[in-house]
Amino acid sequence: MSTAPAIIAVDWGTSSFRLWLMSNDGTVLAEHRSHEGMSEVAERGFETVLESHLKALSIPDSLPVVICGMAGSRQGWVETGYINTPADVTTIGENAVLVPGVARRTIIIPGLAVRSHNEPDVMRGEETQLLGAHLELPGGERYCMPGTHSKWVSMNGAMVTGFETFMTGELFATISARTILVHSTGGEGPVDAQDPAFLTGVRDGWTRPEKTTHHLFSIRAGQLLHGRGPDENRARLSGLLIGAELAGAGVRGGEQIGLVASGALQRLYHAALSECGVQVRDIDADVAVRRGLVDSWHSFSNLNGDLKRA
Amino acid sequence: MSTAPAIIAVDWGTSSFRLWLMSNDGTVLAEHRSHEGMSEVAERGFETVLESHLKALSIPDSLPVVICGMAGSRQGWVETGYINTPADVTTIGENAVLVPGVARRTIIIPGLAVRSHNEPDVMRGEETQLLGAHLELPGGERYCMPGTHSKWVSMNGAMVTGFETFMTGELFATISARTILVHSTGGEGPVDAQDPAFLTGVRDGWTRPEKTTHHLFSIRAGQLLHGRGPDENRARLSGLLIGAELAGAGVRGGEQIGLVASGALQRLYHAALSECGVQVRDIDADVAVRRGLVDSWHSFSNLNGDLKRA
Repeated sequence: MSTAPAIIAVDWGTSSFRLWLMSNDGTVLAEHRSHEGMSEVAERGFETVLESHLKALSIPDSLPVVICGMAGSRQGWVETGYINTPADVTTIGENAVLVPGVARRTIIIPGLAVRSHNEPDVMRGEETQLLGAHLELPGGERYCMPGTHSKWVSMNGAMVTGFETFMTGELFATISARTILVHSTGGEGPVDAQDPAFLTGVRDGWTRPEKTTHHLFSIRAGQLLHGRGPDENRARLSGLLIGAELAGAGVRGGEQIGLVASGALQRLYHAALSECGVQVRDIDADVAVRRGLVDSWHSFSNLNGDLKRA
Repeated sequence: MSTAPAIIAVDWGTSSFRLWLMSNDGTVLAEHRSHEGMSEVAERGFETVLESHLKALSIPDSLPVVICGMAGSRQGWVETGYINTPADVTTIGENAVLVPGVARRTIIIPGLAVRSHNEPDVMRGEETQLLGAHLELPGGERYCMPGTHSKWVSMNGAMVTGFETFMTGELFATISARTILVHSTGGEGPVDAQDPAFLTGVRDGWTRPEKTTHHLFSIRAGQLLHGRGPDENRARLSGLLIGAELAGAGVRGGEQIGLVASGALQRLYHAALSECGVQVRDIDADVAVRRGLVDSWHSFSNLNGDLKRA
């Protein structure tokens, strides 16, 4: 292991592109972010966009690229499919797909799927974060990965025994911008995780999730009848939706949960889980995804020695 | 009582205008509908829009107008406020507000409010439907009034003891058009109330409302993994949201509920309530609102005899 440039790690999602130049031992040597997510690259092509970023950072052609996220979806660069659960999360690298017809060695990591009849589910990108989280803090049995589509994962050792997605982040954005609540929750500032309206919302959502769509309208009524302002209302809306997610995930006081998150979401979910009496183990989402990407490259190249020597 | 033209009854909502020419005994003599809801009349003015409709129907200047709905809101024609619950629903006509400065005698009915600290709520327009429903089928203790914002009302005789609003209709429209589910629930056809996907959704939403935001994402996953089509997905989405509303309203098998609805919504909610073992008493929403408007006019004019003779 050394700190020489060795691997290009990329998280390529629907609306964002994050690239890190990594050493074999996981040191970050350079970083680059842009908004050229999936939806932006359709015209220019994935390889063109990727190489323009690598050229800007003067990264040599010899280094391989490992990618997770929506680049592996049907509408992405190369479709990588899904590994069915139960699945050993340490095998996602071995199952990565080599992108054909490009000069640079480039692999994309597959997603995970729950092929249940009644409650099918998928993840793509979070499996790599999950691998990193598992390597950072082994032994966790439950992980919460908040976001546009929050993922709740159950594990037994390295085995992913199941997971559930909650549309919390997307519902918050859509309900606050596209329903009658736009008049009550205006503004775009981040919600304060210590705002009493947020914490009360969490508790109401967690203890009475069946009332959620009523509690939402009640925010509007609270503006009309009690003159409640947009910051308080946004905080309550966020709390209600996160609280309902915690109820849906079956969160109970006293249990231990690994929270894979960073920034504002980390603060909100840490506060929400603590409000419900959970022992939170924090794992930085950026650290986790980088570690998952680097580990996946090692797994892939160990299995495909000829490629490594090529 | 006679069948001569006597009262102009108007339900003036945010996005629709419905007018009926009524006799004193409640016979419908003429009907007119348009999309000139509240949001359309700001420029032309309420009186101008109303008189243009009345002129088109050759309705004499001497007839009074009774209006319910958003025309009585702060952004409406004249703000009529809210009567606080508990409230006798038969008093809404006595509390109607005479519109000042217009040639034609015109009254607007107030809304109802729950001024609770934790769960405030309001209705405007539905109180008139509720009065009509109470007069059509007295003795009901629970009424469901589905719509963009569904209202669930508890009554003791004519007393409204409380109510709760659920944002079901607006959430269905917004989630199917403005979230990732747009790819899975495309199309705009009405949902079939006998579709097994609708009824299964109702049952899942009713029995496990805390899972709703997970079940929503699962619709997307069902498309990706099982190839489920837009009609089935729309039906399930509708069922899940209505089922969660029923759970939030505390619906139990065997109870009796008055369903104030018409058209496609009546079919969906009747099927959903029946699926949960409820004894449904159907009350047509149009019949109810007309009866509530006519009765409110009689209450108002009995109390204000001088106006009646003016």
